[in-house]
Amino acid sequence: MSETDLSNYKDDRERSESELDEGDRLKPEFVRAVLDAVEEGDAEAAYDRVEPLHPADIADLIELTPAEQRPALVDAVGSLIDGEVLSEMNDWVREALIESLDPHQVAGMAAELDTDDAVAIIGDMEEADQQAVLDALPPDDRAAIEEALSYPEESAGRLMQRELIAVPEHWTVGDVLDYLRGGDDLTSDFWEIFIVDPGHRPVGTCQLSWILRTPRIVSMTDVMKREQTLIPVDMDQEEVALRFQKYALISAAVIDAAGRLVGQITVDDIVHIISEEAGEDILRLSGAGEGDINEPIRLAVRTRLSWLIVNLATAILASAVVDMFQAQIAAFALLAVLMPIVSGMGGNAGTQTLAVVVRALATNQLTDSNTWWMVARELRIAAANGAALGTVTGIGSFLIYGNAPLSLVFAAAMVINNLAAGLGGVIVPLTLDRFRVDPAVSSAVFVTTLTDVMGFFSFLGLATLFSVSP
Amino acid sequence: MSETDLSNYKDDRERSESELDEGDRLKPEFVRAVLDAVEEGDAEAAYDRVEPLHPADIADLIELTPAEQRPALVDAVGSLIDGEVLSEMNDWVREALIESLDPHQVAGMAAELDTDDAVAIIGDMEEADQQAVLDALPPDDRAAIEEALSYPEESAGRLMQRELIAVPEHWTVGDVLDYLRGGDDLTSDFWEIFIVDPGHRPVGTCQLSWILRTPRIVSMTDVMKREQTLIPVDMDQEEVALRFQKYALISAAVIDAAGRLVGQITVDDIVHIISEEAGEDILRLSGAGEGDINEPIRLAVRTRLSWLIVNLATAILASAVVDMFQAQIAAFALLAVLMPIVSGMGGNAGTQTLAVVVRALATNQLTDSNTWWMVARELRIAAANGAALGTVTGIGSFLIYGNAPLSLVFAAAMVINNLAAGLGGVIVPLTLDRFRVDPAVSSAVFVTTLTDVMGFFSFLGLATLFSVSP
Repeated sequence: MSETDLSNYKDDRERSESELDEGDRLKPEFVRAVLDAVEEGDAEAAYDRVEPLHPADIADLIELTPAEQRPALVDAVGSLIDGEVLSEMNDWVREALIESLDPHQVAGMAAELDTDDAVAIIGDMEEADQQAVLDALPPDDRAAIEEALSYPEESAGRLMQRELIAVPEHWTVGDVLDYLRGGDDLTSDFWEIFIVDPGHRPVGTCQLSWILRTPRIVSMTDVMKREQTLIPVDMDQEEVALRFQKYALISAAVIDAAGRLVGQITVDDIVHIISEEAGEDILRLSGAGEGDINEPIRLAVRTRLSWLIVNLATAILASAVVDMFQAQIAAFALLAVLMPIVSGMGGNAGTQTLAVVVRALATNQLTDSNTWWMVARELRIAAANGAALGTVTGIGSFLIYGNAPLSLVFAAAMVINNLAAGLGGVIVPLTLDRFRVDPAVSSAVFVTTLTDVMGFFSFLGLATLFSVSP
Repeated sequence: MSETDLSNYKDDRERSESELDEGDRLKPEFVRAVLDAVEEGDAEAAYDRVEPLHPADIADLIELTPAEQRPALVDAVGSLIDGEVLSEMNDWVREALIESLDPHQVAGMAAELDTDDAVAIIGDMEEADQQAVLDALPPDDRAAIEEALSYPEESAGRLMQRELIAVPEHWTVGDVLDYLRGGDDLTSDFWEIFIVDPGHRPVGTCQLSWILRTPRIVSMTDVMKREQTLIPVDMDQEEVALRFQKYALISAAVIDAAGRLVGQITVDDIVHIISEEAGEDILRLSGAGEGDINEPIRLAVRTRLSWLIVNLATAILASAVVDMFQAQIAAFALLAVLMPIVSGMGGNAGTQTLAVVVRALATNQLTDSNTWWMVARELRIAAANGAALGTVTGIGSFLIYGNAPLSLVFAAAMVINNLAAGLGGVIVPLTLDRFRVDPAVSSAVFVTTLTDVMGFFSFLGLATLFSVSP
């Protein structure tokens, strides 16, 4: 087992009584106490408080510390910030921290870690720093990490660890047990054993509990499962995550183009990808980019502003529709009062459909097999919602203003815009997906433009057509 | 190992060449071929095609089949739909399917499964059907499932499986190996062994690879790790998922109020919760409820319509602001053309902030320790975005209309509304979270009301104040 696994952090019950609140977050009192100690120059007191924490909590502590106080905190707790802590840390915070460290220190931390965690840390660094760290690593680790870095970012090759247990087909359970007890440099971080042919191609897999429940003399080929999910080394991490989810995998073999076993991926490296991939759609749909609260403000402004500028263009397009009806509005200003209701409700309905479709696409629930069923489904929902909203707004506006033509036009526009929202909300993301554009990133602009333009045009257009007046 | 683990589905490479596309989804041609066979009454052909599929893919196939064709498909493939397939199936589809089956059939399927999967299936059924299935189960399984059903929905008690390996402190590695080889009714679905004291309280945990790498004579207390994450049986599943993620767990012990070991949760049951919890925020924020595409249309309409009605109320509130300025609009209809741009841009900026804050709250990145830092951060971003957008719209509108007072008012309103959006986008979800209301569900209404009202009021109000006219 790696040494950090055994680091002496307190057990869960004790921890939750002291540093952590009921939601497993560091208590603000605790964070303040540590930072106060650092500020008073009492490095020892700070160290003693931080020492019992789990690496994930130390990483959280550094993230929760204001950027200007981080160097002093890191100085005080020094050696507690090991590779494990770095690999748990937010990318932006880690990058800033690593820049302040010496390459030899970083190399020392990286050497303790499994390839995948080391690669995650080194892969994020600038070219020059990367080279300095690689130069300071032992040759074996260096070769392994350089090879991993040769795979594209966010691919299985970056995620996998090269440390694994692979045994030949002719071994028995007893052979495997003897091999595992004997080899001192074998990894302890494995959950299944891969059985390979002489060309090092996987032929089966055996989960450890089966080995433990089987007599020594049984051949591995009789215990192993022949069917296994293999991950090509260049597969995108999102696909890897979906595969782990779909087949409920704990670990899986990674193979190169020739089908040779080159590494393994374990589920603990996948859970954060599953969470990120599922969570990032909300950020993309709203145009907040990666939406990480530790992202430098400058970058956050750049991402969000470019999205706002695109939306400004579409808002101007929609207002050009209003512009066409200035004469009607000047003659009957009530039209200007009601028109944002039509466009706004369409926008809301469109966003609902969009969220459902984007999510269904991301989870592989919506495929070519049920596209038309989905379009029909959303249109039926839009028709029902449109009818209900049209009735409510039609009757309501008649009770207030007593202008029947106005209320009929208002209700009709509401129905039309809801149908447009439902249709756009499903067709736009499906079309983008077909053209391999991420529907979460670009759909909202198209759909809200559609509902704004359609809302203004149907309401003001119908009002003009039927000469609605005070 | 459970029998379904060894079911004879083809290996990954073969599968992806035939039934599955490159994204691991069933190909539409394959789905059509199966359904064509069913329609032609050729049950055997349908069976032969479905038989090699993984249970997860059989579940997908049934989901992708239009509801009216499902009974015929199920008749044709019959025995292939076992408990494993049911537990992989979408809740809505499963519920409808189970209603068409005999309680004894369901009981037979449930008996094959681990407690957690059986509970998930039975827990979703109607009271009367539930009782019929429970009555048909063997007494042992029945007691286990009834106990699990006594825990609240979405709690650790529902997720856990009671089957686990627990051994006393005084045992050696050899004792454990002999015990595992001897006991025929022991589970094979375990990834760590729990060491318990005489009161059955966990004192340590040992991952299987450590046992395999340690000589027989070593005492378990010398191999085990004393620090472990314990899950209280009544903990909410979202907290359980966050804990698995944070501490990179493969499995964890579940304890009752007295600290006794009552079950274990494994990560394969957690990955879909992580994905659901991360993905549902986008659906809640847009008011699409659970947003499942298999949800009956009636329920989808009800959920979405109630959200649209709430939004209608807020849209009316915003239009009441416009109503106050009818005279100004009648005198200068251009105001009605530009006002949706101000409110719309505020709405976009507010949604960006909201998405970032909701996500940071859900992932425990935003806590009491960094609340004020976050407010300051979002205000700085809002100020930068507002200044940029105000400059662009001010200059742009002056170039088009050449009306300096109008352009100044337009630009000022843009800045004001961006600041309101940034402030509201962070304060609203934080406040709701403080009062334990899910910020993803309710924030958007408040924030868009704020940006609509503020957008209309600042623009029309300033225009009135400074007597902007043609």
